[in-house]
Amino acid sequence: MDVLGALNLGDIAQTFSKMGMFPVFDLAYYIVSILYLKYEPGSVEVSRRSPVASWLSAMLYCFGSYILADVLLGGSPLDYFQYNSHVLLASAVWYLLFFCPLNLFYKCVAFLPVKLVLVALKEVVRTRKIAAGVHHAFHAYHHGFFIMVIVGYVKGSGVALISNFEQLLRGVWRPDTNEIMNMSFPTKASLYGAILFTLQETQWIPIAKSTLILLFTLFMITCKVVMTARHSHGSPFSLIESWVCHLLFGSPLGGAVEDH
Amino acid sequence: MDVLGALNLGDIAQTFSKMGMFPVFDLAYYIVSILYLKYEPGSVEVSRRSPVASWLSAMLYCFGSYILADVLLGGSPLDYFQYNSHVLLASAVWYLLFFCPLNLFYKCVAFLPVKLVLVALKEVVRTRKIAAGVHHAFHAYHHGFFIMVIVGYVKGSGVALISNFEQLLRGVWRPDTNEIMNMSFPTKASLYGAILFTLQETQWIPIAKSTLILLFTLFMITCKVVMTARHSHGSPFSLIESWVCHLLFGSPLGGAVEDH
Amino acid sequence: MDVLGALNLGDIAQTFSKMGMFPVFDLAYYIVSILYLKYEPGSVEVSRRSPVASWLSAMLYCFGSYILADVLLGGSPLDYFQYNSHVLLASAVWYLLFFCPLNLFYKCVAFLPVKLVLVALKEVVRTRKIAAGVHHAFHAYHHGFFIMVIVGYVKGSGVALISNFEQLLRGVWRPDTNEIMNMSFPTKASLYGAILFTLQETQWIPIAKSTLILLFTLFMITCKVVMTARHSHGSPFSLIESWVCHLLFGSPLGGAVEDH
Repeated sequence: MDVLGALNLGDIAQTFSKMGMFPVFDLAYYIVSILYLKYEPGSVEVSRRSPVASWLSAMLYCFGSYILADVLLGGSPLDYFQYNSHVLLASAVWYLLFFCPLNLFYKCVAFLPVKLVLVALKEVVRTRKIAAGVHHAFHAYHHGFFIMVIVGYVKGSGVALISNFEQLLRGVWRPDTNEIMNMSFPTKASLYGAILFTLQETQWIPIAKSTLILLFTLFMITCKVVMTARHSHGSPFSLIESWVCHLLFGSPLGGAVEDH
Repeated sequence: MDVLGALNLGDIAQTFSKMGMFPVFDLAYYIVSILYLKYEPGSVEVSRRSPVASWLSAMLYCFGSYILADVLLGGSPLDYFQYNSHVLLASAVWYLLFFCPLNLFYKCVAFLPVKLVLVALKEVVRTRKIAAGVHHAFHAYHHGFFIMVIVGYVKGSGVALISNFEQLLRGVWRPDTNEIMNMSFPTKASLYGAILFTLQETQWIPIAKSTLILLFTLFMITCKVVMTARHSHGSPFSLIESWVCHLLFGSPLGGAVEDH
Repeated sequence: MDVLGALNLGDIAQTFSKMGMFPVFDLAYYIVSILYLKYEPGSVEVSRRSPVASWLSAMLYCFGSYILADVLLGGSPLDYFQYNSHVLLASAVWYLLFFCPLNLFYKCVAFLPVKLVLVALKEVVRTRKIAAGVHHAFHAYHHGFFIMVIVGYVKGSGVALISNFEQLLRGVWRPDTNEIMNMSFPTKASLYGAILFTLQETQWIPIAKSTLILLFTLFMITCKVVMTARHSHGSPFSLIESWVCHLLFGSPLGGAVEDH
């Protein structure tokens, strides 16, 4: 019975990890990403005054992770733009979100139940990206543990890591903060995920990759959906982090447990 | 008679598109580019206090388009610096423009009739660069329409697109604006030119490349010479843009028609 | 007697230039580099609030020269991170310098006699890096004199050239100055060293590379040890520079001879 259960889980994980992301999951990813762009103060005015800058920002929100990972591995930052259908889909989402009459598309996708589904689908893509990033780096550098973690991290975090420069494109400059100094939950989770997938890839964790993908996806979906539903910016890691940082870096206890 | 005319135009276009750019046209390009650098407030003081920073700025003005395009296609940003004669020529122009006794060289090339000729020659180089950029990207990505447009755009616009970072090199930081939010005429024309050349390269426009180069060069020369002679910063596109932006993006009509 | 002396010098230079840098010299390089990071105002607070940002800064201080040179030659900026032992050693130094109980490690290495030895060892690594950078660029571009000088320069100067962006990572933004406008002694020496090594590599200077490495190392050690011992920021080049800049660029005489 137990063996059968394990087998079934493995089967489900296998099927799940082979599922294609385009177009449904990618579409959700684009919608949620550009939705967050629209939440940024000033972004609607920019889209009116300079559609090109707004479109470029939207592309960074959708493809920032690919651009960054390609740059870090020495490739062309435009490499992903060869997939015309992806770029066209993201452009259509950008157009609908910013210029749809009566703001109809925005109102649909920002409606909480719809948004929760989209957020859940986005996390599926994020986990896949982390796994693919680590795998890509593993192929280039078989023993480059740090490279695997960094590339996986970057694939998961995407535009957040270059938000200073993305904002600059829209005429906003906030040098006193950045995503590395104040990591949000998805960025932190991407870092921990990248470490997990690196350990899996280099066989320090005795688990199948498809299973890890399934488990990490479920964890991410649960966290993000709950956080989005409750409008929370807290992090499920804060308690552990607070203790680890206290032990390792002498940070004051409870300093990381902030807004909820 | 008509056929002969077409043949002749084709012949002229062929000859024109095979004409070498080095050294005459490139020289004009370097002179006009570094002239614009000298117009920048504070650039003369920087050249006195830190010749290395000033020289680097000048190199970005002359070779920024090659650097950017190489980076975007995953190559070495220094690749173009292997052509020592080009770099030496640009360096000589920089030296003469900034340090010539009595400011003699500057006075010569900034004299309007001379400047108009140089500006015209510069536009010849710009058009070639756009065509070469699109062609280069086409070779790397046969179906990468977006990549072709972006690389052609970058090859035509050059340093303007990274002006924020070029200014930073001279100790100036203006984050509230950038060339993408407020496109100048050459940047806009480069974008439209890149789209045209991409359509030509992928055979959506049934016209020979040499003819397109000739026509686009003539258009650019006319516009830039007239604008330079009249000290105008207006754009011949503003009327069409105003209508297109109104239809597509709901921008207020006439908003783009500004200073003249 | 003379021949024997020359032979001996050549032998010493040969042996010296083949000496491995890892781990002793590299360790000194990491310690001195991260020590300078700790001297930066606010860096200790950042290490408490955001260990990841502090660690990344430390890595830039240690490996910035490799990252920059790899980027400039079109490679992967993460390439050097494949050497896990180097990254782990640098990380250990970072941890000890910032989080060692009682600040013990910091007090040891900042103790002047110890620091002078470490500074001397660091200059050995710097000279080697310049030579290796020029050699690397020479292999990629046999006639790219400018590329050789720039890559050697970047390998010698390291993080200083990207200090604006390194500071941004720690939430500090000082756009009004940068290392190219106000070159410190090591940056200037790296530039001159890169020119010397380029002349040697392209056989304009009739001297063996190992001899040049030995002589340049001795020069750098002397200068840096004296400057560190006297807490001086002056430059042994200032007199010559002042005259050359006066002749070439019309700078006011004595302008470069400043603080001591």
